[in-house]
Amino acid sequence: MRDRIDINCDMGESYGAYRLGRDSEVMEYISSANIACGWHAGDPLVMDYTVRLAKEKGVGVGAHPAYPDLMGFGRRPMGLTSDEIETYVIYQIGALYGFTKAHGIPLQHVKAHGALGNMAFADLEVARAFARGVLRFSTEIILVVYTGTVMVKAAKEIGVRFVEEVYADRVYNPDGTLQSRKIPGSVIHDPERAARQALTMAKEGFVIAHDGTKVKVIPESICVHGDTPTAVSILHKIREGLRRASIAVKPMGE
Amino acid sequence: MRDRIDINCDMGESYGAYRLGRDSEVMEYISSANIACGWHAGDPLVMDYTVRLAKEKGVGVGAHPAYPDLMGFGRRPMGLTSDEIETYVIYQIGALYGFTKAHGIPLQHVKAHGALGNMAFADLEVARAFARGVLRFSTEIILVVYTGTVMVKAAKEIGVRFVEEVYADRVYNPDGTLQSRKIPGSVIHDPERAARQALTMAKEGFVIAHDGTKVKVIPESICVHGDTPTAVSILHKIREGLRRASIAVKPMGE
Amino acid sequence: MRDRIDINCDMGESYGAYRLGRDSEVMEYISSANIACGWHAGDPLVMDYTVRLAKEKGVGVGAHPAYPDLMGFGRRPMGLTSDEIETYVIYQIGALYGFTKAHGIPLQHVKAHGALGNMAFADLEVARAFARGVLRFSTEIILVVYTGTVMVKAAKEIGVRFVEEVYADRVYNPDGTLQSRKIPGSVIHDPERAARQALTMAKEGFVIAHDGTKVKVIPESICVHGDTPTAVSILHKIREGLRRASIAVKPMGE
Amino acid sequence: MRDRIDINCDMGESYGAYRLGRDSEVMEYISSANIACGWHAGDPLVMDYTVRLAKEKGVGVGAHPAYPDLMGFGRRPMGLTSDEIETYVIYQIGALYGFTKAHGIPLQHVKAHGALGNMAFADLEVARAFARGVLRFSTEIILVVYTGTVMVKAAKEIGVRFVEEVYADRVYNPDGTLQSRKIPGSVIHDPERAARQALTMAKEGFVIAHDGTKVKVIPESICVHGDTPTAVSILHKIREGLRRASIAVKPMGE
Repeated sequence: MRDRIDINCDMGESYGAYRLGRDSEVMEYISSANIACGWHAGDPLVMDYTVRLAKEKGVGVGAHPAYPDLMGFGRRPMGLTSDEIETYVIYQIGALYGFTKAHGIPLQHVKAHGALGNMAFADLEVARAFARGVLRFSTEIILVVYTGTVMVKAAKEIGVRFVEEVYADRVYNPDGTLQSRKIPGSVIHDPERAARQALTMAKEGFVIAHDGTKVKVIPESICVHGDTPTAVSILHKIREGLRRASIAVKPMGE
Repeated sequence: MRDRIDINCDMGESYGAYRLGRDSEVMEYISSANIACGWHAGDPLVMDYTVRLAKEKGVGVGAHPAYPDLMGFGRRPMGLTSDEIETYVIYQIGALYGFTKAHGIPLQHVKAHGALGNMAFADLEVARAFARGVLRFSTEIILVVYTGTVMVKAAKEIGVRFVEEVYADRVYNPDGTLQSRKIPGSVIHDPERAARQALTMAKEGFVIAHDGTKVKVIPESICVHGDTPTAVSILHKIREGLRRASIAVKPMGE
Repeated sequence: MRDRIDINCDMGESYGAYRLGRDSEVMEYISSANIACGWHAGDPLVMDYTVRLAKEKGVGVGAHPAYPDLMGFGRRPMGLTSDEIETYVIYQIGALYGFTKAHGIPLQHVKAHGALGNMAFADLEVARAFARGVLRFSTEIILVVYTGTVMVKAAKEIGVRFVEEVYADRVYNPDGTLQSRKIPGSVIHDPERAARQALTMAKEGFVIAHDGTKVKVIPESICVHGDTPTAVSILHKIREGLRRASIAVKPMGE
Repeated sequence: MRDRIDINCDMGESYGAYRLGRDSEVMEYISSANIACGWHAGDPLVMDYTVRLAKEKGVGVGAHPAYPDLMGFGRRPMGLTSDEIETYVIYQIGALYGFTKAHGIPLQHVKAHGALGNMAFADLEVARAFARGVLRFSTEIILVVYTGTVMVKAAKEIGVRFVEEVYADRVYNPDGTLQSRKIPGSVIHDPERAARQALTMAKEGFVIAHDGTKVKVIPESICVHGDTPTAVSILHKIREGLRRASIAVKPMGE
C-alpha cells in the first residue's frame, strides 16, 4: 500500500466580474492546484490570488493550459498545428510562472485543460506537441497524464517528467479508459461513492469499472473535478479515509 | 564620450495572419528587442520566432507589456487599478519569459508599450504599479524608463534596476520631454536627421530641442520606432556613425 | 400623477460557462431589458436566450453597448475616438438586432453600459458619438439618458429619440446627479428604501437627495441594477407600490 | 450562355493596426463583397469603411461569419454545437447588418468563412445550423453555397435562398469538389489560367478537372480569393473576358 498520494483539482477559473468554483474551500483539501492561465478562464488578478492562496496552504502549483477559447471555457476541440500547441503551452506556462516566481514558489506541474486535454489523451501528435511545450520550458516540471492514453507514450518519448492521475468522480470502462461524459451517470456526484472509489484506488491500486471488472491503476494523484457540485464533500470524505488509512496527502512534486 | 550604447526597437508585433514590421531586417541593427506579449500584438508563434531571431543575432530580449487591447494595438488609454497593472505586467513578462527560457537566454529588460507607457510616464501610481510588477518578477530585470518622467522616480522608489532611453526619431521640448505626436513634424522621418540626433546624444550627451536649446540627456539606450517607415535607413546610418565614433553597440544588460 | 412608467434592468450578462444575474426572476418584474451585446458580457447563446425570455414576458428589448473589455466587464474607462465609439455602438446594436429580428420583435432602445455610460454622461464628444451611432442605425430606437447630463444635450442635438431614467437604488446629490459609488452607502440595498424612492419619483416626480433636498426628476423609466443583491426584492416592492397607485408598468417604447 | 454573372471576393479583413488585402482596388472588379464581421478579422471601423466603399462602387454586401478565432484568422476547425453555430451566425450577420442599415443599403448575402465554411461544406449538421442562422435572420438573404456539398442539401431543406459559386483560382477534382489546398498547385496563381477557368465556367458551364475531365458547374457567382497575390490581375482578366463575351457582371441579389 502507498504511504502517500497527491490530490489535484482545477483552480482559479474565475474571470473579471465572473466567479466560478469554491477555491478557498477546496484549497483546504488538495495538495496540487491546476491553475487556469487566462485562455479558457482566469485573469492575472485571479492567477495572482490563486497562487498566493495555494502557497499559504502549502499546495503545489501547476499550469492548466487550454485552447484560446474563453467563450467555450476551453471545452471545444480546435484543430491546431503542433507548433501552435507547443507555443501556446509555453506561453501559458510562462504566464503562470510569472506568478509563482513573484510568490517565490516553484511551478510544480502542468496539466492540459478541457478539450486540449481530451485531444492530448487521444491524438499522439497533440500529446507530443503538448509534452514538447512542457519540456522546452523545463525538464523539471511534471506533466500530469492519464494512464493508458497516448499522453503516457508521448511523455516517455519526449522525455518529460510525468505523474499518472486517477479520477474519484468518473466512471471507468473495463479497459481503464473513462466512460464518456455523454453517457448519463458517468460523473459520480455521490460523495460516498466517489470517495470510496478514490480510497480503493489509493489503498489497493485498482478501480471497479462499470461492468464490475477490477482495473489496475497507478494512483499517483487523485483528480477531483471542482465543478462537481459535491466536490467539497467528496474531498472531505477522501481526506478522512486517507487519514484513517495513514496515507499522507502530499504535492506530487515533493 | 561613451564607449558603448544600446539600441532598442519594438519587435514581434505580427499576429496570426497579420504581418507587421520588418523584424528580420531591423534585428541586424539593434542590440535590444522589446517583444510584444500577446496583449496588443504578438501571438505565441510570433513570440517564439522573434525570441529565436533575437538569440541568433545576439540581441537582448525584453518584454513589452501593454493594455489588453488588440483592437487598439495598445494605443488607447485604459483606466486600470494599480493591482490590475501590476498583475498584467507580471502575466506578460512571464509569458515572454516562457520563450526566453525555452531558448536558453535571459530575459533582459521590460519596457511599457503604447498608452500604458504614456500613462506610466505621466502618472506616478501607474509608474509604481508597473515597476512593482517588474520587481515582483525579478530584481535583475532592467526597466527601460524615459528621463525626466515619474517612471524614473517610481523605479528608484520601488528599487528596480533601470536604464534611461533617448529617441532618435522624436522631436524634443526644451525641458527634455517629447513634443506631442499630435504636433505635425514631431516624428522625424528623415534618416539623416534622426541619425544625427542619435549620434549627438551618444557622443556628446545632449539633444537640440525644437527651439534650439541644448538639452542634456543620459543616452544609455537609443530607441528607434520600428513603425517609422524609414526605420531601417535610420538604423543603418546610426550604426555607421557609431562605428566611426568607435562607440560599440551592446545590449543594455551586458 | 403619471399613469404609466417603465422599469429597466441590465440582462443577459452571463458568458460561456459563467452565470451572472437572476434573469428569469428579474424579467417577471421589468418592462425593458438592457441586453449585453458580447463586448463586456453576453455571448450569442445568452443573447438568443435572453431575447426569447424578454419576448415571452412582453418585456421591451434594448441593446447595452459597452467598451471592448470583457476582462473588466466594461467598467474601465477607455480613451476611444469618436469614430470608434460610433462604430462600436452600431456593431453592438446590430448584433443584438440580429436576435430581435430572429425572434420577430422590435429593438426598442439602447442604453450605454458601465464606463461607456459614465463617459457618455460626462463628456459631450462621447455622448454625441454614442447618439450618432444610435441614429445611424435607426431614427426610431430610443436612447436611454440620464437627466441633467450632457447625454440629454447630445440626444437633442443629434436628433435621436430619448427617454430619461431615474434610479431606485442610488443616492442622489442635491443637483440631481448621482452620488459617486466610491462614497459608502451610495448604493441602496434596503428594498424598502429603494422601493420608496422609486415610488416617490413615479408618483410625485421628485427624489430626496442625501441632504434632504427635494430634486425634481422626469421618471420615464426606473432603473434597477440587477447586480444589487436585493434586486428582486426591490423590484417586487416597486411593482406592488405601483399597482396600489394604479400606475401601469409598460415598456418605454409602447 | 449566361448573360450575367456575379463575382464575389472576401473584403474587410484588416483589423486595428493591421492592414490586409487591397480592398479599394479589388472592389473595382467585383459585384459582391463578403465582409468580415469581427470574429476572424474586421473591426467596426473597418466594417463601416468597407460597407461604404462597397456602396460607392455598387457592390452587393454580404456577411462573412467565422469561428471566434482572430488568432487563427478563422482557419482552424472548432467543434461547436449546432446552437452555437446558429447563434454565432445570427450575431455576425446582425453586426454587419448594423452597417448596411447605417449606410441605407440591403444586406444581400451570407457566406461562411474559412474553417467554418469547410465544415459547413462537409458536415450536414454544421450546414443546417449555418443555414438556420441565416433563415432566422431573414428569408430574403442569399446563402452562398458550393455545388455538390451538403450545404446545398441543407439550404434546400431549411428553405433559405441560395446561390452556387465556382472558383477561378482553385483546381477541381473530377467529381466537382476542390482539390485540397494541401496538395501543391491547388491554388492557381497564374492570372491567365485562373481567368481562363473562370471564363470557361461562365461561358460554357463547365470546368476542366486536374485529370482533364469536363465537370459541369452552375456558375452563378465566381469567387476569387483576395489573398491570392495575383488577385487583382486575375480579376482584371476575368472582367476583360466577360466584357468581350458580353456577360454582364451584377451583384447576385439583383
